[in-house]
Parts: sequence; structure tokens; C-alpha cells
Amino acid sequence: VKKRKLLSRDPNTTTAGDLMSPPVGVFRPDMTVAETIEQLRVMTRDAIVTYCYITDADGRLQGLVVMRDLLLARPEQKLEELMARDIFALPAHMKLEDALKLALSRHYPVYPVVDINGVLKGLVRGDELFAEQAIEISAQAGSMVGVEKEERLNTPLGRSLLLRHPWLQINLLTAFVAAAVVGIFEDTLGKLVILAVFLPVMAGQTGNTGCQALAVTLRGMTLGDLKPGTERALVMKEGMLGLFNGLLVGVTAGAGMALYASMQGEAQPLMMGIVVLIAMVVSCIVSGLAGALIPLGLKKAGADPATASSIFLTTASDVASMGIFLTLSTVLLL
Amino acid sequence: VKKRKLLSRDPNTTTAGDLMSPPVGVFRPDMTVAETIEQLRVMTRDAIVTYCYITDADGRLQGLVVMRDLLLARPEQKLEELMARDIFALPAHMKLEDALKLALSRHYPVYPVVDINGVLKGLVRGDELFAEQAIEISAQAGSMVGVEKEERLNTPLGRSLLLRHPWLQINLLTAFVAAAVVGIFEDTLGKLVILAVFLPVMAGQTGNTGCQALAVTLRGMTLGDLKPGTERALVMKEGMLGLFNGLLVGVTAGAGMALYASMQGEAQPLMMGIVVLIAMVVSCIVSGLAGALIPLGLKKAGADPATASSIFLTTASDVASMGIFLTLSTVLLL
Repeated sequence: VKKRKLLSRDPNTTTAGDLMSPPVGVFRPDMTVAETIEQLRVMTRDAIVTYCYITDADGRLQGLVVMRDLLLARPEQKLEELMARDIFALPAHMKLEDALKLALSRHYPVYPVVDINGVLKGLVRGDELFAEQAIEISAQAGSMVGVEKEERLNTPLGRSLLLRHPWLQINLLTAFVAAAVVGIFEDTLGKLVILAVFLPVMAGQTGNTGCQALAVTLRGMTLGDLKPGTERALVMKEGMLGLFNGLLVGVTAGAGMALYASMQGEAQPLMMGIVVLIAMVVSCIVSGLAGALIPLGLKKAGADPATASSIFLTTASDVASMGIFLTLSTVLLL
Repeated sequence: VKKRKLLSRDPNTTTAGDLMSPPVGVFRPDMTVAETIEQLRVMTRDAIVTYCYITDADGRLQGLVVMRDLLLARPEQKLEELMARDIFALPAHMKLEDALKLALSRHYPVYPVVDINGVLKGLVRGDELFAEQAIEISAQAGSMVGVEKEERLNTPLGRSLLLRHPWLQINLLTAFVAAAVVGIFEDTLGKLVILAVFLPVMAGQTGNTGCQALAVTLRGMTLGDLKPGTERALVMKEGMLGLFNGLLVGVTAGAGMALYASMQGEAQPLMMGIVVLIAMVVSCIVSGLAGALIPLGLKKAGADPATASSIFLTTASDVASMGIFLTLSTVLLL
């Protein structure tokens, strides 16, 4: 039941405060260890107390005492002598998505939640955040291709259809855009039917290059590797990778085209191979750049960087690859 | 430094035992609380003791005492009265991948590691497992498209090229297979150039349907939703979703084809739309089934279910979609 509750939350609007339960194990800094243990004996009858939280007269979180230190202290020692200060707390208004990133490297059983004045408002259990984190991250591969976060293996057929289908229809509209670009070159295709055989190869390879760039960029965002100011270098790197990958794949694909064309008795097999090579290089640069720019742009626009990223990428790489290939063919081969 | 160490590990050969450090905080069941506290005072000078582990004379793990219970107990109580029994422990020989799945729903700060006889061999910190888990899960979207787990945003250009490029070349070879299928129908394409315009639409939409099935299946495997015996139902469901998605997308795509064909003055625009519809339905069923069967098959074969899954899927859906479309066109339109 709890998992379902979490799953139904929208991580873009849910805050750390929405997940919290009321604070337990709260003490004042001037209390002694002996007094604290007596109070704990009562508290633990109804609640699980993992840490002792120390607050001032206004309820502001001052520090934390772990049970081990309480156990090993002298009974007359005050909590303020034992407590760790500057402890990690989640702001109540923080979006769940950002809270998850902060918790990623910590792994505490319980996190205190504070308001903007530092007042302790509640506690969030680590395993709840953890389960949510795993769901968030594993959702990424799906949301790139229009699978909603809430869909799981036991989602009923009708619901799955409803969740996935709209994306396919939208994608089809963008595929029509790519088809329209191809349609412009129907004359060229009529004169050189062999080009039609290579259209899906061009679109597929360009798409793959872009998908790799997209996957690496999203991974970097998820694991918190993307530091402000490094975006430009990332985009440049993916453009360069598109260039080199396009060059190397273009040589193989171009050789394939030249071989196939000469087997078919076409007039200019070598030139056809060169057209494939050039088109592959240019369109792989475009799709590499797009693979990095699309999630960065979606994030900048305040959207989830993974959602529907694949639609934009496919459109860009389809239009670029088939458009460039057919333009070059029209100019150089006819 | 620690993260790099973890990243260089192969999750298929690394075991829980490889991550562990020597056990601390180990006590015998007949020790009293007072004795335990005295020993803890010494132990905690050099080590962080989070839980007290209770072992028998042979070193077998018997139970666990949390600091809070030690704090609230009477000094003369024995640990065996306080300890939780049947506690969760990771088998030392367990593959890291499986250990991560067991830890997913727990979120303890520390996990005990035992050998096959139940002897306590060491401790694994939860945050280490946790960091590894996040990297594992976030790697999935990438490994589907040939991005290695170790690639991060700061991976040098040359290394990224080396890591990603082989996959693109292999994918190109499979794209040639799909192109060869299209090549069989060059006569058909020469007579009806308009079919060439719709080839990328067919391949793209079919691929998307399969990608959704693949993403949901992989998510289910990652989050531990895939129970033994449910594989058949999963495959059936994805086949049915392929049918319905293919039908609905096929209607839109078929209408698009009929409209475009009649605008172009083709002889049989309606029949062309029907060919698109039928081809879309059949090939979406194929790709839906493939999207579920490929990761299940890879897992059964002992391979990582995500790695290169997209290559197999693309090949299957390209060959199916373009092959069926052009076969139907040849039979029904010429």
C-alpha cells in the first residue's frame, strides 16, 4: 500500500515535507544523558527512535546524538557535549527529485526535515526515499520512449495501452514530417531506387549515435555529474563523437553502398558510396549535438529531461539523415 | 577513489564478499549489557560500531542488538535476551547484482556478510551498495544502446569513442540485413516509389512499440517485479499491446498513406492505406513480443538483459516491418 501511495505522487510537485512523519526522539541541549535515557524509555513504547534530535527553545534543529554515544557517555553529561552539529537535514519545501539526489550519497536510515527557519518539522525514512529513488532512476529508460513512471509489470493491459499509446501517435506525426522530407525527393528515388534501400540504414545509424549521446547525458544528470558551466563542453564532445563515429560508420556504410551498387550495375557506385559517407558524417554530428542539447533544453525549460526526449531526437535525426542523404544524392548523382 | 574502485568492478563476477570489511562489534550471547558497554568503549576508539552482532562459539551469526536496546536494558541483562534473531545477512558468495536487489527494500546502514555455514565474515556499508545500485540502474538506458556502464560525463573523448563505436558498427551490420530485405523488393519500389517514403515510418513506429515493451520488461527485472512463472503472461501482454497499438497507429498511418497517395494521383490509394494498416498490426505484434522475449532470453542465457538488447530488437522490428510491408505491397498492389 505504501509503495502505491509513493508511486501515485508526482515527483515534480511532491516535496520532502509530503513524505515526512512527525518527529520523535526530540530533546533539549541542556538535558543530561540520564534524563534522556529515562525519556527514551517512555518514548520507545510507541515509536521507533533511531536518533536523538536536539532542538532549541524555538524548535530549531541544533544537532544529533547517536545511540552509541549516549550509551558510552557518563550519565551527568549534557546532550550539547555529545551532539554532532551541522547535521544534514532536508528542507521541507524541497522537491522530492532534488531531495533524492542529496540522499543518494548518504544512505541514512532516517532524515530530519526542517522548514526555512531550520525548525524541525518531521522525519523521512531512508527506505522510503530509497525505493522512490530506484523507481525514479529506472523510469528513465522508459520515459525516453513514452512509458510512464507508474507503469509496472502488473499494470492491466487496458491501462498500459492508455498510458503508452498517445506517445506512439505523437511520434507518428513527427514520422510524417520525416516522410514529407523524403517525399520531396520522390523524383530522385524514382530514378535511383537503390537509395530507398539505404534510407532506413541512414536513419537507423544516425538515430543510434544520437541515442548514445542522450543516454550518457541523462546518466550524468541522474548521478549528479553535470556541473553548471560544463554543458558547453558536453555538447562539444558529443558533436565531436558524432563526427568521428559518423566518419568510421560512414566508411563501412559507404563501402557497403558502393559494393551493392556495383553488384546492381549502377552507373556511379563509388560516388554513391561517397554520398553515404558524407551524409553519415554530417547527420551523425547533428544527432550527437541533438542527443546532448535535447535533455539540456528540456531541463532548462523546467521539464523532465528524459520524457519524450526520444521523439525530439528521432525527428531531428530522421530529418537530418534522410534529408541530407537525398539532397546530396540529387545534387551529386543525377 | 572509492567510487572508481567500485565502478571498475564487474557486477557479474563481483560478490558481496568482495565489498566487505572485517566485522566489528561482535559479541557472545551470554555477555551482559554492562560487559558489552565496557568492550564497546574500547572498540569505538578505532572503529565505527553501528550494530552489535552476536555470534556463537563457531562464529555463526545468531542475532543483532541495536544500540537503543542496549541503552534501555538493565546492566545485568544478557545479550541473548535483547537480540533480534533471524536477521538479514548477505551470503558472501552472492553476486553483487543479486545482493543489490535484496538491499533495495531494506536500506540498512550496514549489512552483515556470512559464509555458507552462517559464519560472520564481514560487514558491507549500505551507502556503498546504494551508490553501486544507482549506477547499475542508471546504466540500463545506456546499455540498451551500446553505452558501457563505466562511461560518465568526464570520460575522455577518445575513450568514449572506443567504448561506443564497436556497437555502432555491429548495429550497421544488422542494418545491412534489414537493407537486404528491402533490396529484395527493389522492383516493387521502382514501380511504386511512394512506398519508399513510408519505409522509415513503418520501421520507426514498429521500433517504438518494441522499445516500450523492452523498457517495461527491463524495469520489472530491475525492481524485482518479475516473479518466476509470470514470463508467459508478460510476453502475451506485450503481444496484445502490439496488436492494439498497431491497430490504432495503423489506422492513422494508413489514413496518412491513403491521403498522400490520392494527392499524388496513385491508382489505389485506399488499398495502399490498408496495406499500411495490416503491415503495422502484424509488425507491432512481432516487435511487442520481441521487446519482452529479448531481455528474458538474454537473462536466461546468463547475459545482462539490457546490454545490446536494442540491436536485436531493431533488427527484428526492421526486418518484420519493412519485409511485411513490401511483401503485402507486392502481392496486393502490383
